[in-house]
Amino acid sequence: MVHNGIEYGDMQLICEAYHLMLALGMTQKEMAQEFDEWNKGVLDSFLIEITRDILNYRDEEGYLLERIRDTAGQKGTGKWTAIAALHHGVPVTLIGEAVFSRCLSALKEERARASKQLAGPSTKASVADRKKFLTHIRNALYCAKIVSYAQGFMLLREAANEYKWNLNYGGIALMWRGGCIIRSVFLGNIRDAFVRNPQLSNLLLDDFFKQAMMDNQQSWREVVSQAVLWGVPVPALSAALAFFDGYRSERLPANLLQAQRDYFGAHTYELLGKEGKFVHTNWTGKGGNVSASTYLA
Amino acid sequence: MVHNGIEYGDMQLICEAYHLMLALGMTQKEMAQEFDEWNKGVLDSFLIEITRDILNYRDEEGYLLERIRDTAGQKGTGKWTAIAALHHGVPVTLIGEAVFSRCLSALKEERARASKQLAGPSTKASVADRKKFLTHIRNALYCAKIVSYAQGFMLLREAANEYKWNLNYGGIALMWRGGCIIRSVFLGNIRDAFVRNPQLSNLLLDDFFKQAMMDNQQSWREVVSQAVLWGVPVPALSAALAFFDGYRSERLPANLLQAQRDYFGAHTYELLGKEGKFVHTNWTGKGGNVSASTYLA
Repeated sequence: MVHNGIEYGDMQLICEAYHLMLALGMTQKEMAQEFDEWNKGVLDSFLIEITRDILNYRDEEGYLLERIRDTAGQKGTGKWTAIAALHHGVPVTLIGEAVFSRCLSALKEERARASKQLAGPSTKASVADRKKFLTHIRNALYCAKIVSYAQGFMLLREAANEYKWNLNYGGIALMWRGGCIIRSVFLGNIRDAFVRNPQLSNLLLDDFFKQAMMDNQQSWREVVSQAVLWGVPVPALSAALAFFDGYRSERLPANLLQAQRDYFGAHTYELLGKEGKFVHTNWTGKGGNVSASTYLA
Repeated sequence: MVHNGIEYGDMQLICEAYHLMLALGMTQKEMAQEFDEWNKGVLDSFLIEITRDILNYRDEEGYLLERIRDTAGQKGTGKWTAIAALHHGVPVTLIGEAVFSRCLSALKEERARASKQLAGPSTKASVADRKKFLTHIRNALYCAKIVSYAQGFMLLREAANEYKWNLNYGGIALMWRGGCIIRSVFLGNIRDAFVRNPQLSNLLLDDFFKQAMMDNQQSWREVVSQAVLWGVPVPALSAALAFFDGYRSERLPANLLQAQRDYFGAHTYELLGKEGKFVHTNWTGKGGNVSASTYLA
């Protein structure tokens, strides 16, 4: 199930890269060449390879891809992964966005109507140095992919904890290389990480992947930042980036959320340094417990 | 359930605004003043009001908020909404991100460890005109809130279709004003939209909200674009923006996704203008069906 969820994520990321290339006015031939280049580096994988082949594919009417209807089907395994993640409380955000993106793509008629009524930004996609920006897109895809696999393994680890499974994470990565749709050089890097440290708590904390994030995060930020200004949707690239920035934050703004919950529902909160002791504040100073509503959150 | 999911989204959006203000080095007093201002405009609501009060709250040790532990609890209703959205195939992305953000906040020790190993961007948050940027944040919150409620009502509409319910959407908005945590002036605007057009297919297509999006989307893009460069996580603000840009796209890159699915799994696809007829292509030109794997997606 997690394999298939990750596959949803990988495919969505490639679609977002393709969307950005389209927005930049590239021809399918140029895109195919780019994916061919990508297939020689860290992204070397079956899905990048077939994307190149699909971009190159022509029949008697010309390129086939641009005539295919942009509504994605699904067999339900991505949805299953996202639901399992919610049940286990693991933030598998990239796969979640990939599943929802397929749902949105299915609303074809509604999108067609909306496109005539909702204008986007005036800034159109353009870059001074296309070659350089394409490298940024590749690096962004790489960073987001690392986050996606890190999230997938977080879910495996949480399930293993709950169900008392003894999982061989390196072995799982290796297994996913054999004949699977997500087979890639990348999975070998994951195996290596778990060989280096079988107790690795998170892929993002492995030296190899940590260095990859440090080397490539600026590209990723450039791409998401520009896409947002151009009005090109990059749900998976941006969800992964938000996760990365949240994950590396010792302090998140959830203290405010806890205060709100205590204010309206007397749900109590903990103080930093006094963990395990749940306290309640009479925020309004009007005495008694404040509970604005019987609705709880 | 949808009410509570929306509440998760509203609270997360306020937390992201607070996080951005923190990153800009504002004091709690300054933040409280800003939320007080916001409470006089389109964001006038119970949650904005109590956020102001929470920011102002001091005890004998000083401001309380900054001493509260940043790990959010949850009773499960947001999770329930996200799971229902996945089951019904409705892209309720903002609530999904809000739930996952609470999950990430709960990984406090892991985040503390990661914060020491994963450096962010070198660009620190700073703006030339703080007053102007705070207006951008307010507008961004407003746009994302519109998207969140639009998504929530999409879920209600889909459930109504499936279960043959006859829902009074304007009445629901009005009901949510009575004593609920999400009570706001905004819900009155939603009621008005459904009074203008009881058949309204999506809140984003109502004239009032459409105009609001047109007036404020540039601010929203600025905020997300900057946050991404600064390394401040804004998962809900950016998920909503990606949804908005996808929703107003007549063409999404899902044609590539369908081509990939047909390439590796012979899942077939439709051609534009020939909907309802599912075709398969022998992409490799090597004859026979291509099915790279027994794993389906």
